[in-house]
Amino acid sequence: MDWKQNSLTERLGIQYPIFQAPMAGGLTTPELISWVSNCGGLGNMGAGYMMPDDIRADIKKVRELTNRPFGINLFVPDCDVSAKAEDISAMCTVLERYSSELGMAEKPLLPEKDYALLYKKQLAVLMEERVPVCSFTFGIPDNADISELKKQGTMIFGTATNVNEAVEWEEAGADIIVVQGSEAGGHRGTFQKEESGMIGSMALIPQAADAVSCPVAAAGGIMDARGIAAAMILGAEGVQLGTAFLTCRESGAHPLYKQALLNARKDRTAVTKAFSGKPARGIHNRFMKEMKGVQALPYPLQNDMTAPVRKHAAKLERPEFMSLWAGQGMGMAEEVTVKELMSKLVKGTEALLDK
Amino acid sequence: MDWKQNSLTERLGIQYPIFQAPMAGGLTTPELISWVSNCGGLGNMGAGYMMPDDIRADIKKVRELTNRPFGINLFVPDCDVSAKAEDISAMCTVLERYSSELGMAEKPLLPEKDYALLYKKQLAVLMEERVPVCSFTFGIPDNADISELKKQGTMIFGTATNVNEAVEWEEAGADIIVVQGSEAGGHRGTFQKEESGMIGSMALIPQAADAVSCPVAAAGGIMDARGIAAAMILGAEGVQLGTAFLTCRESGAHPLYKQALLNARKDRTAVTKAFSGKPARGIHNRFMKEMKGVQALPYPLQNDMTAPVRKHAAKLERPEFMSLWAGQGMGMAEEVTVKELMSKLVKGTEALLDK
Repeated sequence: MDWKQNSLTERLGIQYPIFQAPMAGGLTTPELISWVSNCGGLGNMGAGYMMPDDIRADIKKVRELTNRPFGINLFVPDCDVSAKAEDISAMCTVLERYSSELGMAEKPLLPEKDYALLYKKQLAVLMEERVPVCSFTFGIPDNADISELKKQGTMIFGTATNVNEAVEWEEAGADIIVVQGSEAGGHRGTFQKEESGMIGSMALIPQAADAVSCPVAAAGGIMDARGIAAAMILGAEGVQLGTAFLTCRESGAHPLYKQALLNARKDRTAVTKAFSGKPARGIHNRFMKEMKGVQALPYPLQNDMTAPVRKHAAKLERPEFMSLWAGQGMGMAEEVTVKELMSKLVKGTEALLDK
Repeated sequence: MDWKQNSLTERLGIQYPIFQAPMAGGLTTPELISWVSNCGGLGNMGAGYMMPDDIRADIKKVRELTNRPFGINLFVPDCDVSAKAEDISAMCTVLERYSSELGMAEKPLLPEKDYALLYKKQLAVLMEERVPVCSFTFGIPDNADISELKKQGTMIFGTATNVNEAVEWEEAGADIIVVQGSEAGGHRGTFQKEESGMIGSMALIPQAADAVSCPVAAAGGIMDARGIAAAMILGAEGVQLGTAFLTCRESGAHPLYKQALLNARKDRTAVTKAFSGKPARGIHNRFMKEMKGVQALPYPLQNDMTAPVRKHAAKLERPEFMSLWAGQGMGMAEEVTVKELMSKLVKGTEALLDK
């Protein structure tokens, strides 16, 4: 196969339409991003939770490590997120079980944050830095912001979990739509009706590709060359892999998290709101199990409330309380370098599609 | 591509490793089954709910219409299914809402049936008739039954929804394992832990193919040549399509059901236990919505309780109370004959895999 004939490689100025997923929470180190881009793919920073200055600093590091294109992902905030005082206090009580088991001095509490303001400042950094690609999850930015980004030459990637969302993104001006199958690890990008957002890649890719005229990239369950070739045959012009990059040496995943992924052949994933308030897929662990019946606060309040417990658990090496985001393909994860992985993906796809 | 090099075509004595899914409930008419087999695929009878004499009569009709191989699917019964009298009576009250809205004279009640005995008698018919292929859903038959079937030359297809189930089926002696991705319409074949049975085809096919040494056939979300080619690249040696065959002229689906599938581009599917007591995927309709919070009786009790309402609704052309089983690929359904569909599938797959 000739990768140059692919519509995405030329538009993006990359060699292979293979994107490393922008996983938030310290996973996408500048090393990971730049290695992926240096190997001909597209590295992406999961900047949803990052402070504007940290985004700027990481962009600088990425640019020191590569002169190839890369992307930054932001979470579009929901408007008017709030919770009743009694629900917040009930969640504090629930989480105290864990903070006390972990011997934490501080009790769970809800920090005050202005998410709309954070997003505006994050966006301002992306504009100032003129990043090559901006991707968005949980919603579609304002028309004005999209126009501004496009005017300065930034490519816009939208995240869709069903055909209707893909159509909405196309109308909003996305250059590429990443369709996230139900297999995907981490947060569901769903921004319309949550319940309709769990469509498997096998059904989602062809229906989305048929419904929109801009290129579609596939995410969800893709772990190796077989997944890439299959996604492209189904109608995708690019692919986005998250879990496969998590076990790379260059990823920022906690060693215990990497180990859990590599040992996951017999484990299963589940979708939970317990960690963040929005549905996300990860390795099924004790926290997810015990929180099953508990009503989570809306995102991102639940995320802020559980953050100290998760951080402390990581420090104490207690993965049963960590958010171990993982896709359903995790049984195929391997301990590799980005260079090894990219080489296997590219050569394997060529072998499968050339016959 | 050379279909003869496929491991399944030779073993099964068919031209193309394309199976029409054995959909229960009058959908797989002898015409549908025989047309699929005559076109070089494998037609399958969904005999799970059928009386032994009806199975025998339909096998006779199929044999009059084709001399090619075909398959019969049975549901392996759970042992000791029962419900408390108060739960049954509560479900009667819930369903009275619908029987009364439909103007039905009879009130909902639970018929007495011996499912273990029915299964034994169904199995006896398959043995007597020496059918070429027997497939099983919801469980694995006794060793003795599997041995007996194999001794007489019947091929055994097992249904698995996760890697562990696939491994269990291989150990039990399955000739082929049909792995059912979460995209699939109708009943989930899950027989181990229900919650781990919702894995998308993109992740399930390669992991199952890696885990077992017998051939794997893929079901779930496959609607056209793109899906077949993708599944084969992911590691499947055969494919099973249900929803795509439902809108064929030869299928036994109610005209309203076919129409609902053909108009489903904007609709969504959901998984519900409301109709049968076991999770199954269908077009999201009023019955599913209203029954959402209601605890269903165990399968097949719930199925028997709701049967009169569903039948009456079909008679009165009220699809909002019918079980409109459908996979997540339903937006790709087309009004065709089996001959047209099979030709498109075969030629399309050849075109995709030959380049």
